[in-house]
Amino acid sequence: MAPIESLLWRRLRIHQIYGANTDVGKTIFSTFLCNAASNHRGGADRVAYLKPVSTGPGDEADSNHIKRFAPSTSTEVLYQYDIPCSPHTAAIASGRPIPSDHALLRKIQEAATRQAELGPGWLFLETAGGVHSPGPSGTSQAELYAPLRSSVLLVGDSRLGGISQTISSYESLKIRGYDVASVLLFQNDQYNNDGYLEEYFDKHGKIPVTAIPGPPAQHSDKDKDAQALGAYYGNTGSSNKIGKVVESLDKRAQDRISQLESMSERAFKTIWYPFTQQKLLSPGSISTIDSAHGDYFQIYKSQDTTKSSHKSLIQPAFDGSASWWTQGLGHANSQLTLAAAYAAGRYGHVMFAEAVHEPAITLAENLLRGMQNPRLTRAFYTDNGSTGCEVAIKMALRASRDRYGWDVKDKIEILGLKGSYHGDTIGAMDASEPCTFNEKVDWYQGKGYWFDYPTVNCTNGKWVVHVPEPLREHLGDGEEFESLSHVFDVSSRSETAVLQMYETYVQLVLEGLGKQGRKFGGLMMEPVILGAGGMIFVDPLFQRALVNAVRKSAHLIGNAQVQTTSENDWSGLPVIHDEVFTGLYRLGRFTPSSFLGVHPDITVHAKLLTGGLLPLCLTLASDSIFKTFESDDKSDALLHGHSYTAHAIGCNVAVETLNELQTMDMRGDWNWARNSKWKEDAAPSLSQDSAAPPEAWSVWSRDFVTKVSKRTDQVSGVWALGSVLAITMRDADGGGYKSRAATDFQAALKQGEAWSVHSRVLGNVFYIMASQKASQETVEEMERKLLYCLEKI
Amino acid sequence: MAPIESLLWRRLRIHQIYGANTDVGKTIFSTFLCNAASNHRGGADRVAYLKPVSTGPGDEADSNHIKRFAPSTSTEVLYQYDIPCSPHTAAIASGRPIPSDHALLRKIQEAATRQAELGPGWLFLETAGGVHSPGPSGTSQAELYAPLRSSVLLVGDSRLGGISQTISSYESLKIRGYDVASVLLFQNDQYNNDGYLEEYFDKHGKIPVTAIPGPPAQHSDKDKDAQALGAYYGNTGSSNKIGKVVESLDKRAQDRISQLESMSERAFKTIWYPFTQQKLLSPGSISTIDSAHGDYFQIYKSQDTTKSSHKSLIQPAFDGSASWWTQGLGHANSQLTLAAAYAAGRYGHVMFAEAVHEPAITLAENLLRGMQNPRLTRAFYTDNGSTGCEVAIKMALRASRDRYGWDVKDKIEILGLKGSYHGDTIGAMDASEPCTFNEKVDWYQGKGYWFDYPTVNCTNGKWVVHVPEPLREHLGDGEEFESLSHVFDVSSRSETAVLQMYETYVQLVLEGLGKQGRKFGGLMMEPVILGAGGMIFVDPLFQRALVNAVRKSAHLIGNAQVQTTSENDWSGLPVIHDEVFTGLYRLGRFTPSSFLGVHPDITVHAKLLTGGLLPLCLTLASDSIFKTFESDDKSDALLHGHSYTAHAIGCNVAVETLNELQTMDMRGDWNWARNSKWKEDAAPSLSQDSAAPPEAWSVWSRDFVTKVSKRTDQVSGVWALGSVLAITMRDADGGGYKSRAATDFQAALKQGEAWSVHSRVLGNVFYIMASQKASQETVEEMERKLLYCLEKI
Repeated sequence: MAPIESLLWRRLRIHQIYGANTDVGKTIFSTFLCNAASNHRGGADRVAYLKPVSTGPGDEADSNHIKRFAPSTSTEVLYQYDIPCSPHTAAIASGRPIPSDHALLRKIQEAATRQAELGPGWLFLETAGGVHSPGPSGTSQAELYAPLRSSVLLVGDSRLGGISQTISSYESLKIRGYDVASVLLFQNDQYNNDGYLEEYFDKHGKIPVTAIPGPPAQHSDKDKDAQALGAYYGNTGSSNKIGKVVESLDKRAQDRISQLESMSERAFKTIWYPFTQQKLLSPGSISTIDSAHGDYFQIYKSQDTTKSSHKSLIQPAFDGSASWWTQGLGHANSQLTLAAAYAAGRYGHVMFAEAVHEPAITLAENLLRGMQNPRLTRAFYTDNGSTGCEVAIKMALRASRDRYGWDVKDKIEILGLKGSYHGDTIGAMDASEPCTFNEKVDWYQGKGYWFDYPTVNCTNGKWVVHVPEPLREHLGDGEEFESLSHVFDVSSRSETAVLQMYETYVQLVLEGLGKQGRKFGGLMMEPVILGAGGMIFVDPLFQRALVNAVRKSAHLIGNAQVQTTSENDWSGLPVIHDEVFTGLYRLGRFTPSSFLGVHPDITVHAKLLTGGLLPLCLTLASDSIFKTFESDDKSDALLHGHSYTAHAIGCNVAVETLNELQTMDMRGDWNWARNSKWKEDAAPSLSQDSAAPPEAWSVWSRDFVTKVSKRTDQVSGVWALGSVLAITMRDADGGGYKSRAATDFQAALKQGEAWSVHSRVLGNVFYIMASQKASQETVEEMERKLLYCLEKI
Repeated sequence: MAPIESLLWRRLRIHQIYGANTDVGKTIFSTFLCNAASNHRGGADRVAYLKPVSTGPGDEADSNHIKRFAPSTSTEVLYQYDIPCSPHTAAIASGRPIPSDHALLRKIQEAATRQAELGPGWLFLETAGGVHSPGPSGTSQAELYAPLRSSVLLVGDSRLGGISQTISSYESLKIRGYDVASVLLFQNDQYNNDGYLEEYFDKHGKIPVTAIPGPPAQHSDKDKDAQALGAYYGNTGSSNKIGKVVESLDKRAQDRISQLESMSERAFKTIWYPFTQQKLLSPGSISTIDSAHGDYFQIYKSQDTTKSSHKSLIQPAFDGSASWWTQGLGHANSQLTLAAAYAAGRYGHVMFAEAVHEPAITLAENLLRGMQNPRLTRAFYTDNGSTGCEVAIKMALRASRDRYGWDVKDKIEILGLKGSYHGDTIGAMDASEPCTFNEKVDWYQGKGYWFDYPTVNCTNGKWVVHVPEPLREHLGDGEEFESLSHVFDVSSRSETAVLQMYETYVQLVLEGLGKQGRKFGGLMMEPVILGAGGMIFVDPLFQRALVNAVRKSAHLIGNAQVQTTSENDWSGLPVIHDEVFTGLYRLGRFTPSSFLGVHPDITVHAKLLTGGLLPLCLTLASDSIFKTFESDDKSDALLHGHSYTAHAIGCNVAVETLNELQTMDMRGDWNWARNSKWKEDAAPSLSQDSAAPPEAWSVWSRDFVTKVSKRTDQVSGVWALGSVLAITMRDADGGGYKSRAATDFQAALKQGEAWSVHSRVLGNVFYIMASQKASQETVEEMERKLLYCLEKI
């Protein structure tokens, strides 16, 4: 199912006519507009009128009115229903198949394309009823047509109550990202709505308001009626006013295109990009994103420079990095928009120290509940994953220092995994080992020991656990598994000698470090997948073994006399799971910790937490960690805070996101993927145990992953889990962050006549992820594209 | 002007009846509701009906309809206009004085209070027309009544087009923080809007929809009409349905109160608060904020436990810390809400690396332009002040290291001021000297030299610059100034020996540090006011001297051969201004750097940047700093990034905020403060020079500041600038972060029969700040309250 593209052409001015209510004169204004557009350049422009959905008897249809009173206009109706009621009711009553939203949008796009190909001109799209009147499928028009992002003419309501109708309709459009270019309405000397609205819209968005006299009262005599209307449309005053509207629309459309045209150049001059070597950048390599809906960006096609071109200026691109791993519920999801706007309208932001508001407490409680981890009882708010990880580190280090009686001046380090990444603030960086990301950063000073570990990949159709050098002596090069689920069957695998081997290895390392006199204050890791480190899939059994070993090894870490105080107290070291990337269903489960069967003492949550809309982070902690900071001395507290701590917008959007994700999970929205062949893979111990967590699965089909893995000349390994797919491309030079082995593939995906794929790579690792809302059709379309491009390069 | 409080009582159920349009049956549903409420507990509840504003001939008024058909209801109309049109038109036509929004709300509050005092009951407030129909002043009702936050019953539109009207009206309410409890509408067999809306509102917010038959057609015979209506209201089916609505409203109201009642306890159990010693916390000390509007929180009064109490459950409190210094355009400002929602609806969040979108480029350009600093050409986006400061440090250190040929392993430090604060992430903390905030933080390691400096205060009516120990030998204890503006007259003061003395002092220190072999990579400071360090007002001349001296001292810092390449290149060291707190009109000017007459090389902007709504930060830098990171090697780039970099919501809200603040400035919105006696203070060199920056002024009046400063037994110093007022309380123990000298004052302000002040203190420093939207009346009311409480303690 190829995506819909926004409607923008250099030579075709497209406007969508929305009404503040039914019967406010949309068709009358359309008629005026068609005539004015046709006179605009002395008839040089073609004018077309499109009514996507028309209800009521055919011969009274709006398009016939246009034909009659704006005769130089070509008219088209896509769906005609003869029953005079709302399109969704009429569509059902018609007994004909109801077009899907996608089919309707596609037809509009095709109609617009035809017009653009014919030559310079105008296209007016008249909607039905009010802004939220349902389309044939039942979806409200304001919602349905939003991805088209055509400029809007709002016909206001001049009757009693019409001020309210006009403003509310405007707001419903605005919060869906529409740009209202002009408000048009009839004059009404009794209510003078136009006077009020003129002032209002000047203040709110500087939108011009134009009022003309209303049409004559209907005659019973058809001919007289037509004559009166003819005279009405011939009125010079009204025509001149609408002529000016058309001029301003033309100018506005040109401005919009100039703006899009200039943006990448301006960005190139002004923006300092994150993670970007700007010397390798050019204006042409900067994507100008005009809007985004669902899984797709709408990107300005800068290559198009011919002023008279008949080609569309916008092309959809699949958001292959899920906007840096944040996107969960689709771009421009109006459910999240309303959640954000509600919180803004109720609170703005309210200060949080020693205060509480409903979204903040609800989110904290819901997240804690969702984790199903008896250790976690406390929620600390910050702004993003990096700052949330710093808080986690501050928590863990203080707890260990306090328990083991170390001094604040002692050098206390972190245990972690090689290739870990926890963010870009200095404290979070210090928790990762020296690497490309930090080698040139002043003040970076790695403070830790980072373990080697076995990794998982699908190669040539087989799931293999690759063993790292230090363990090969005992375990050989690796182990093959029947399926992905068998890799995750940590409870069966725990009964093998491998777990013991892993634990022994960890304890030997700890012993060695202890002998060097090094002190450690926490074990910190990303469960299952190390993201920025290169989408590395760590053997979950190893992570479990690592936690087990650390928790048993208080004697190797500090004062051997120290005892834990309760079942949920930490032992050995506080275990921190950085779930910023991997949490909240990114890997198919609420928490990836459940894959390991491990209850961490501290967890960090961000990215998907807010469904992909705005930054927010929570660090959860156990009671025993929390208690470390309690004292009669104010300065023993965790003196960390952000001005916008627990900002209401973020909290409310996150509450909505968690609810939606959990509902989708329970409702079985991902069953199309879960119930595909991934399910057949379920390991025996999982499928027999009804209390077992759900199997490992991905929206990327098992067959697709197998196919990719068999391209062994190009691909050294591939894995899929939840919404993520990662392909390690063969690189003669060994790969790494600076590798360019995946860039050919990325470049091939960026091509495409109708749509393309916007992706990011990590050295020789190509990855792609869908939002949790991506449909089966979308994912299948992507699989075909990926295979096609793999074959092509 | 005392603030309005939200309407919530334990024994009075208040509902506001809004219509999806005019003529949808608000009064008919009100009648049903009044009758049902009166039957709800068998007549035990009093029922009242309030029409705040009524238009149309008096004898046809809605309240008469209620009197007639719900006779046990007591009715009241606050403003009656006999002309049948929208209230704002009717109010003008009446020739009577038009009540202000505040006066209207006050009257409603008084009416509700009277009802609550009479006993348990119900109060239905019927609005006029549609949700956005204007009130008497012209303000839309949805906007006007939002601070009351009463539960809403939305009467839907059952006619053709009514689906759209109902949903749009709902959205206009929702984005202003209203909770719609129920949707009511008439059945209509032709359009079946109720069926569609029932499904819609179940999906969107689980709001119950109730439909009953519409009223009989109007009889020309009055008696027959009344008879038909009597029968209509007597209909058992309809009455039962509305009875159920009333039951659910009662339950909902109870739930809301229980929720408010439990929140502080739940927060006490679950939330880990920033900057808070939780052992000193109790549920009772946690403020439950139900909503916020303008400068006021609406706080739940937890002390009220009597179930039958007649006292209101909500009390307004002035947001005295401007929600941790963020608040700029007032809480719940619908202009910002719409800016946020528009961006959410157009983009969601879209990834920013190598991409651009309109709000991001517009904001970057507008902020750079607003700074009027020829050095600044580049904008780097992060999430908050702390991360933005880390980016500034990374920029400066790399630039210095590169120019002076130092190694990344070298210890490179920062020059700063004692008491500086740049945030709580480790990198930002390391730029501050050891102090209470960081002494117990693991991984903190101060990396810098921090200067002593002269400070400014008003004491006993005089503005004094206090000289620190190292400079007293030459300058004495301090210098008295005629006025605040004279302190800021840095250009006249630059011609005195003091500037030279300051510079010499700085250079001597630099020389000493150089001899110790210490390397410095940047000068970083908060211009004019050090916020978290205790609202310390630094002599602006000293900050200017510090910059001058550093810029002249390349030879003392590194390789003496190094030359600057252009006028806008940095020299000596990159100068970083952390304007997070002090910028964007907090101190009355776009940038506080203009007070010093200094062009920094790097600046950091957050807090007010988004008007007080959500986190976002920009670090601006000069071209020469930017160029340091350009190379053919990808890893030389500034490898720093946030997933939500330049999130569209934040950027668009910031664009709106900057526009609004700059418009307010140019329009002279603060002239009431500027043109007060502060203006008389203008130093001669400023008033004569038309090109001079605007004078120093504050919304806190000069006379008020003088008065406070004269309370020398309690106050050791006070200053006011822009919207900030800081009072240093006398503390026998010397003050500091752990001091409790200001807490008595703070506690006194927390009291108040009708409203109170929510404030934060920094040890013995009490501060308060208004939003930039605070009115003269609000500030004057606060001044009276502050003086009253100062006298009382």
